[in-house]
Amino acid sequence: MIVSSSIASNEKFRSLSAAEFFYRNKEIAGFSNPARAIYQTVRELVENALDATDSHGILPVIKVAIESDVMPERPDVYLISVEDNGIGIPPDNIPQAFAQLLYSSKYVLRQTRGMFGLGAKMAVLYGQLTTGKPVEVVSSTINSSRIYFFKLAIDVKENKPIVLHRASFKKESDWHGTIVKLFIEGDWNRAKPKVYEYLKRTAIIAPYASIIFKDPSNNVIYFERSTTLMPRPPREVKPHPQGVDIELFKMLVQSTTAKTLKEFLIKEFQGIGEVTSNSIIEMVRIDPARDPKSLSNEEIELIVKTLREYNNFKPPRADHLSYLGEEIIKAGLKNILKPEFVAAKTRKPSVYEGHAFIVEAGIAYGGDIPPSEEPILLRFANKIPLLYDESSDVTWKIVEPKSGTINWDVYEVKWPAPLVILVHICSTKIPYKGVGKESIADVPEVEKEIESCVRDVARELKSYIIRKRREVEEVEKAVEIVKYIPDIATSLAVITNEASYDVISSGLMNLVLKKFKNVKIRDVKDVVLSVE
Amino acid sequence: MIVSSSIASNEKFRSLSAAEFFYRNKEIAGFSNPARAIYQTVRELVENALDATDSHGILPVIKVAIESDVMPERPDVYLISVEDNGIGIPPDNIPQAFAQLLYSSKYVLRQTRGMFGLGAKMAVLYGQLTTGKPVEVVSSTINSSRIYFFKLAIDVKENKPIVLHRASFKKESDWHGTIVKLFIEGDWNRAKPKVYEYLKRTAIIAPYASIIFKDPSNNVIYFERSTTLMPRPPREVKPHPQGVDIELFKMLVQSTTAKTLKEFLIKEFQGIGEVTSNSIIEMVRIDPARDPKSLSNEEIELIVKTLREYNNFKPPRADHLSYLGEEIIKAGLKNILKPEFVAAKTRKPSVYEGHAFIVEAGIAYGGDIPPSEEPILLRFANKIPLLYDESSDVTWKIVEPKSGTINWDVYEVKWPAPLVILVHICSTKIPYKGVGKESIADVPEVEKEIESCVRDVARELKSYIIRKRREVEEVEKAVEIVKYIPDIATSLAVITNEASYDVISSGLMNLVLKKFKNVKIRDVKDVVLSVE
Repeated sequence: MIVSSSIASNEKFRSLSAAEFFYRNKEIAGFSNPARAIYQTVRELVENALDATDSHGILPVIKVAIESDVMPERPDVYLISVEDNGIGIPPDNIPQAFAQLLYSSKYVLRQTRGMFGLGAKMAVLYGQLTTGKPVEVVSSTINSSRIYFFKLAIDVKENKPIVLHRASFKKESDWHGTIVKLFIEGDWNRAKPKVYEYLKRTAIIAPYASIIFKDPSNNVIYFERSTTLMPRPPREVKPHPQGVDIELFKMLVQSTTAKTLKEFLIKEFQGIGEVTSNSIIEMVRIDPARDPKSLSNEEIELIVKTLREYNNFKPPRADHLSYLGEEIIKAGLKNILKPEFVAAKTRKPSVYEGHAFIVEAGIAYGGDIPPSEEPILLRFANKIPLLYDESSDVTWKIVEPKSGTINWDVYEVKWPAPLVILVHICSTKIPYKGVGKESIADVPEVEKEIESCVRDVARELKSYIIRKRREVEEVEKAVEIVKYIPDIATSLAVITNEASYDVISSGLMNLVLKKFKNVKIRDVKDVVLSVE
Repeated sequence: MIVSSSIASNEKFRSLSAAEFFYRNKEIAGFSNPARAIYQTVRELVENALDATDSHGILPVIKVAIESDVMPERPDVYLISVEDNGIGIPPDNIPQAFAQLLYSSKYVLRQTRGMFGLGAKMAVLYGQLTTGKPVEVVSSTINSSRIYFFKLAIDVKENKPIVLHRASFKKESDWHGTIVKLFIEGDWNRAKPKVYEYLKRTAIIAPYASIIFKDPSNNVIYFERSTTLMPRPPREVKPHPQGVDIELFKMLVQSTTAKTLKEFLIKEFQGIGEVTSNSIIEMVRIDPARDPKSLSNEEIELIVKTLREYNNFKPPRADHLSYLGEEIIKAGLKNILKPEFVAAKTRKPSVYEGHAFIVEAGIAYGGDIPPSEEPILLRFANKIPLLYDESSDVTWKIVEPKSGTINWDVYEVKWPAPLVILVHICSTKIPYKGVGKESIADVPEVEKEIESCVRDVARELKSYIIRKRREVEEVEKAVEIVKYIPDIATSLAVITNEASYDVISSGLMNLVLKKFKNVKIRDVKDVVLSVE
């Protein structure tokens, strides 16, 4: 086949900066349309705000505002601002932290809401390309005597921050934290239900946070903290040797200060001490005194293979994970949903691909919860509510009533049921299906833990439902008996001629209540009334 | 609240290269486990191979091989190689094209299978971190007199290629194309069904390609081309003004050679000529002779706003899109599925967010297709088969029998039915839900077109099913009548005493066949036989 020479030369190769890549593919980070953009912006900024507070032991106070009519002739533009009382950001880091993609303090092995170093920058980028406006950042760290103010834009071609304005002021109060303001093109009407739902779920998962939200119609909603109990802050860990790959090993070799292979193994990995390092070095037959930087590719491959296959490591540490705990989960569910029953369970740590993880679940039933043909599922990952793509999430596969793993009949749940299920997974690495952080992949180990955890709380619900049914039956029995009290008391009063009717009837009532321990006078009166 | 000062200083900010980002988050590009890694590697390399051939008018010949037992003591390592007869890659571009993420020839407005500039590099990266081995590339462009050979690795920290080996040889034949070989850790047993399904679907969508595949057990499967009819190669287009944003406008200003605003508008956008540029310039009231590079931010915002709101542009051009056409779709379905009925439809171009797109659908029914409770759905985007995440794809929402948009009763389809539906969408920008390219988002314009297109082919199926039912009924009627022919012919032969039995009976048979035009002698005999 004859092909003209012009064909090959037509191909123009070029490279993209990370900023241009995500600019072109913003939908994969959740910025797919103006409605989703508002939701995504709010959540990314709120999640940063929470990471800056509770992860450092500070009770969060988060202020969120969305304003309309902020740009002439652009009714589709909104100003979104989020303020926190967190640790603040050092001024030298602010430009990159907000205007350079893939720059973050989250690139360590530590459980944080943020993970990709993308969210806030994507919001800044989206605002910039739809409105042309810079982001405004005000921040002060805890011990700083000054407050810093920046206006920033992203140089998309170069993925570098452009500092349009920088100023600082003497700090007169003890305020610390960060305020971010940005203009974006949005669709508030379509975003509204998702934003409210997001904030409500955030209040459920972080009942120790106070969140104030003002919407474009000046409606203000205040989620006041319902507890001051806070989860323990997450801590950074070293990588577990079982999850290491050749690339990670090489990076650790590059950055280590260890002078010998043995020191390197002990210093850079969790769970390797004197004894374990000796066994490993014996298995690979490399001089323990070797400088790690002198290792050949073949030697590195051998060590990595040995680490991955060595079966005697302790499981990855989970004591650095920041789970909520059963009390906080129950407080959150009670406070927001007003159910008649709640239960919660935090499972023991488990492991996938070298990452420790913990699954927690809560269940809420009855009360103000409306009955529905499916459970209302509240999904959370590292304390982030996940709202989109529910049907492709691993948890939905488990709890869905028709074809899910769990048969709800077993737990005495009859649909439609007033049932809310909360599932929270925390880990240094959440197996998200995409950078938009909306659904979790069905990693077998994770799936198994979620199922067990939901069954744990479902069993408690079952006991409650059975107990409640029995109580209703008891009340009905008691009522049956109580109905005869007036007649019997009258007869007895006549026969004995000693006690008055009132004394006898209240004595009989006491006898009945003694027999039906769970029945209260109020119940009986209610039922008698409702029967009459 | 008193917080210790050590908290703030704990935060370590750093930046990641694109390579390190995708190394850490390889699952979002489809490399989530060893089984998926084999599938993803095969598809990325095959898609590059097809882009290098059919997009340039070359009938593709693609050779794919997966070998096992290629590394001592690593039974989990496979060598994957893919060879094409495409345009080849210039030697100076090879290192970056295979070992630098976000470097590509696909970053232009043109319909290609590749889009993100990630796929092949992710395979190289995954191979490198699981086996430590470099990728090997052999390539020669069409008019080159030499063949080039490279061994490459990725410097993950810097996102730069490392050239381990480079050589070239004099070309003795007229061979051109590219061969890529790489070692990866994989799980062939679990990957096998997906890889076979992927290749089968590729053969359906590209029946003009010859694909030879050798698996680790040395089984060879050969999908021979069934047509030399090829879709028209896609062409690059300029951006449509309706889809422009501030960032894109600024990039075009940066790179343009136009000296005036008016020239800039005409030169850099599609659908803007003399008249349109005049109207736009009049609306924004900026001097048409202004150097575009001198425009202020406010002026750019004004022009972009005007372009987006101007309603008189022609719709985006679709003549650059490379759809398959009804003949190729039917050839592919017939060749691979051996159905009794096929139909295909290519819709007229449509538009979303400034991108033209075309939807095509095919339907195949009966024959070798096994009946099933749901249609077998073959999804394609820019000629790529999509295998994973079916339930979250926009097309599944439409065709799913229970809750989908389409009520199949209307089309006379009764479940279980032997039904295959093929849907192909092509565009310069496919609205994928993730960089793994597995499912398409429910963009309203796209959803509407897919539904209409499936209904188009479903109507043809309905006519066929009704016609077939009528034919069966006719045959049954004809058989009823034919049964009496022997008796009648005998009687007539006796009565007339002129014609023999044979003449009369064949005359009667002809009368019957003339009445039932769709019935053939064979049908009648079959039915008579089956009745007897």
